[in-house]
Amino acid sequence: MGSHGIVLFAHGARDARWAEPFQRLSARLRELRGESASGPVSLAFLELMTPDLPAAVAQQVADGASVVTVVPVFFGQGGHIRRDLPLILDQCRAAHPSVEIRCSTAVGEDADVIEAIAGYCLRQAF
Amino acid sequence: MGSHGIVLFAHGARDARWAEPFQRLSARLRELRGESASGPVSLAFLELMTPDLPAAVAQQVADGASVVTVVPVFFGQGGHIRRDLPLILDQCRAAHPSVEIRCSTAVGEDADVIEAIAGYCLRQAF
Repeated sequence: MGSHGIVLFAHGARDARWAEPFQRLSARLRELRGESASGPVSLAFLELMTPDLPAAVAQQVADGASVVTVVPVFFGQGGHIRRDLPLILDQCRAAHPSVEIRCSTAVGEDADVIEAIAGYCLRQAF
Repeated sequence: MGSHGIVLFAHGARDARWAEPFQRLSARLRELRGESASGPVSLAFLELMTPDLPAAVAQQVADGASVVTVVPVFFGQGGHIRRDLPLILDQCRAAHPSVEIRCSTAVGEDADVIEAIAGYCLRQAF
């Protein structure tokens, strides 16, 4: 049985510094999954940065993943998530028919994430 | 003495559904500030949605804010935050010279926010 990979899917930007929180996020996620990690954690981008999602998924499959969960690191479920991403996921599934490719809702839809952001905002205004 | 407002500054998108997490965030932030809120909480957008930041700040000033803290609800400190936002803040400060207009770093730079996102990602892959 293969491993279960996570691909953090972000928008991308021209400015390399933009990616820093995503790099910290992937590093922290690797820590949380532990030494006995059940699979890889990668970053992928919609545009302006590499790798794109098909390349990141292909790499995880080449490394032995039998399940890949894509987590959109976006605040909202806008056009990129509701229109662009499903088409890219279809490409990935067609390229790797024996791999289960799942996708979660955007991180900004999670109540705990909203709570953490609200807490941060609150601390800025005292 | 006036109130201390918070303006949540987001990118904006064509799809109205994209704004939902920001609406939940502002509602939650109003709750956290309590009934005896020391000031208003508003949303503002860089593009594609209204109001823009100058309009949101002007409204808070009209409502009596003497301090306005802008919190960029972005993951990374890319070009929008490092180049576009300072110019918009300069406009706001020029329009309201008697108001103190502060700006925090992007929410994605906060360790607690990254921790919450990492926790969400982890729960998607079990």
